[in-house]
Amino acid sequence: MSPFDELERRSPDERNAQFERELPKLVAHAKAAAPAYAEILEGVEPGDIRSLSDFQRLPVLRKSDLGRLQSRMPPLGGLATCGLTDLDYVFQSPGPLYEAGSRASDWWRLGRFIHACGVDRSDIVQNCFSYHLTPAGHMFESAATMVGATVIPAGTGNTDVQVRAAADIGTTAYAGTPDYLKVILDRADSQGVDLSGIKKAAVSAGPLFPTVRSFYSERGIKCLQCYATAEAGNIAYETIPDQGLIIDEGVLLEIVTPGTGQPVESGVVGEVVVTVFNEDYPLIRFATGDLSATMPGTSACGRTNSRIVGWRGRADQTTKVRGMFVRPEQIAAFVTAHEEVKRARAVVTRENEADVLVVRVESSTRHARGLDESLRAILNLRAEVELVEPGALPNDGKVIDDQRPIG
Amino acid sequence: MSPFDELERRSPDERNAQFERELPKLVAHAKAAAPAYAEILEGVEPGDIRSLSDFQRLPVLRKSDLGRLQSRMPPLGGLATCGLTDLDYVFQSPGPLYEAGSRASDWWRLGRFIHACGVDRSDIVQNCFSYHLTPAGHMFESAATMVGATVIPAGTGNTDVQVRAAADIGTTAYAGTPDYLKVILDRADSQGVDLSGIKKAAVSAGPLFPTVRSFYSERGIKCLQCYATAEAGNIAYETIPDQGLIIDEGVLLEIVTPGTGQPVESGVVGEVVVTVFNEDYPLIRFATGDLSATMPGTSACGRTNSRIVGWRGRADQTTKVRGMFVRPEQIAAFVTAHEEVKRARAVVTRENEADVLVVRVESSTRHARGLDESLRAILNLRAEVELVEPGALPNDGKVIDDQRPIG
Repeated sequence: MSPFDELERRSPDERNAQFERELPKLVAHAKAAAPAYAEILEGVEPGDIRSLSDFQRLPVLRKSDLGRLQSRMPPLGGLATCGLTDLDYVFQSPGPLYEAGSRASDWWRLGRFIHACGVDRSDIVQNCFSYHLTPAGHMFESAATMVGATVIPAGTGNTDVQVRAAADIGTTAYAGTPDYLKVILDRADSQGVDLSGIKKAAVSAGPLFPTVRSFYSERGIKCLQCYATAEAGNIAYETIPDQGLIIDEGVLLEIVTPGTGQPVESGVVGEVVVTVFNEDYPLIRFATGDLSATMPGTSACGRTNSRIVGWRGRADQTTKVRGMFVRPEQIAAFVTAHEEVKRARAVVTRENEADVLVVRVESSTRHARGLDESLRAILNLRAEVELVEPGALPNDGKVIDDQRPIG
Repeated sequence: MSPFDELERRSPDERNAQFERELPKLVAHAKAAAPAYAEILEGVEPGDIRSLSDFQRLPVLRKSDLGRLQSRMPPLGGLATCGLTDLDYVFQSPGPLYEAGSRASDWWRLGRFIHACGVDRSDIVQNCFSYHLTPAGHMFESAATMVGATVIPAGTGNTDVQVRAAADIGTTAYAGTPDYLKVILDRADSQGVDLSGIKKAAVSAGPLFPTVRSFYSERGIKCLQCYATAEAGNIAYETIPDQGLIIDEGVLLEIVTPGTGQPVESGVVGEVVVTVFNEDYPLIRFATGDLSATMPGTSACGRTNSRIVGWRGRADQTTKVRGMFVRPEQIAAFVTAHEEVKRARAVVTRENEADVLVVRVESSTRHARGLDESLRAILNLRAEVELVEPGALPNDGKVIDDQRPIG
């Protein structure tokens, strides 16, 4: 499989050098033209950003803060660098949250992913993502257009009609959620309709279960998944099944401790933070709320960018204990306040009809002096501190582990 | 209101001269590259088409024949002049019928209409046509893009969410079916949401009732309608409310006697037949199945093209009488066979639990000699001939008037 472009095979040094060249310009542009970035990055001197580590000291913008930002500066929260009517599209996702979009060539960068799926100008792509209000339909149409494929804008639902369209038109590739192609194929089977022309599937927006992947594989369908969001477009994508997702060339990806902007060590599960260089709608250290981790090494396909593992849950683990919010940011502040504390994890359980909060602490010393008081001051809650060995806390990105039974 | 381009103000002679120059090329291209036109236009010499009247002797392609054509040459019935995978889009409309589409600038020519609605680059268009399988959503998105407007790809349904999107984003223009904007506005009223920013409405795909138009007008919303089809794109469009629809500059429009390819006299209701010059998907004398009539004079807006009245019903009046099909083509053949017969209209009623077929005939003579036998031979049915004065039959495009009670 040839790469989408030469960017995919450059050395990590070249890639980082490009980011380091572009980051000061991105920050300067965003501060000058987007009201939200003017606030968020107040006092930041673009010229001072000389390295990735300089950049990683900038504040993160949390997905969970978008709603408030958008209420204050409707509809896009002041993240666009142009006027609303200069944009091609405005989308609405459930929340509601609003996103920008553009007809500019491969603006969401999913062309790279659909190319990796083997889709090209000889293909007819049945695009079963919704086009209505949310951007997924337009994102994958833009991708299919980038590689010269013909698109059936099929949208969601009405499986009988989908089966008929696929058979009559001769669909060769599917784009949509991981499960829906199976629904279409099962329906076709039950009707005696032959859809064996479908050989490629580009899926996203939900978990791809191994049994579903096997189902496709057994039918000779190459199915790959990508990780994309409505704000950022493509973030990472598979090129080989189950070998991790390669980071998109247009994205600077970090994994941070939830509730902070601090990068974790390689391989540790944390929150995905992305920087995207769209001129009209830049994202600077945007914390997606999703958990993942980097993988060692590079892909056997020859692409040189780092890979991440699949989705590992949501980073926003904020919960309530005895009526008070406990937030990942608070646990992070606690860790930062004590040099000897390496990691911490709040565990919430329920005993005798009451909430119990234990904070398990990886510490380089054997005594917990002052930690109880510090926690109480930060959380405004009584909590028990339990010291554990360094490395004893599981690597699952959880900072708050709410184990109370639901309901 | 400035015109969309200078084509709209050229003289009828210039317009006709352009058509006469382009028609032989169109026919030659379609015959050479599209299998269906190679069959339909077999024996036609493009060079022999020297005038509109030469062109009007070519066979018509009926919308009602598309299904069979598409079954024989799937999916597009051999009407495209390129390979299927050279197209940007394939759509499916109920039937199912399949249509081509393109991302080429203003391919469906609705930019002209949306410009007449006053929509420009300062507008935010909430596009409430469906994008899924049928082409309407893409058609109006293409139009909005042509005039530089921002698009909310809203689709159909979920009125609460539509209201919220319009309010949060600041929608200024609506595109959709004639009634749905009223549904949105009524819902907004009931929720106390202010949508007074919506000032323009571009509607199509259904009747615009006078009460609905008044409702919009009273709210200061300029609402105009157009007549477009999934195959042809824009055919005709309003520029002033209730003053007829101006024929699109990219369309050669004829009104013919249903069941024939013969143009009616000016002002007579008949079937709309269009020729569209898309290089990849040309339509040559495509009979839409819709009834309309030309209007005298030209629009007060300064556009010079002819106008048509709004939709007057369906041209395909085929029915069954005593178990036998009676088709408009048969009535037309009967008229053609008798020089003294100017027009005819089959009227079907039910008396004493039996179908009664009377063919009312406008004749220049007072005797019906031979007409009964001729009708019986053509219809394979017994029918009564009733002579009427020339001009006595109503001008409503009806060739077969089925007056039997339904059910």
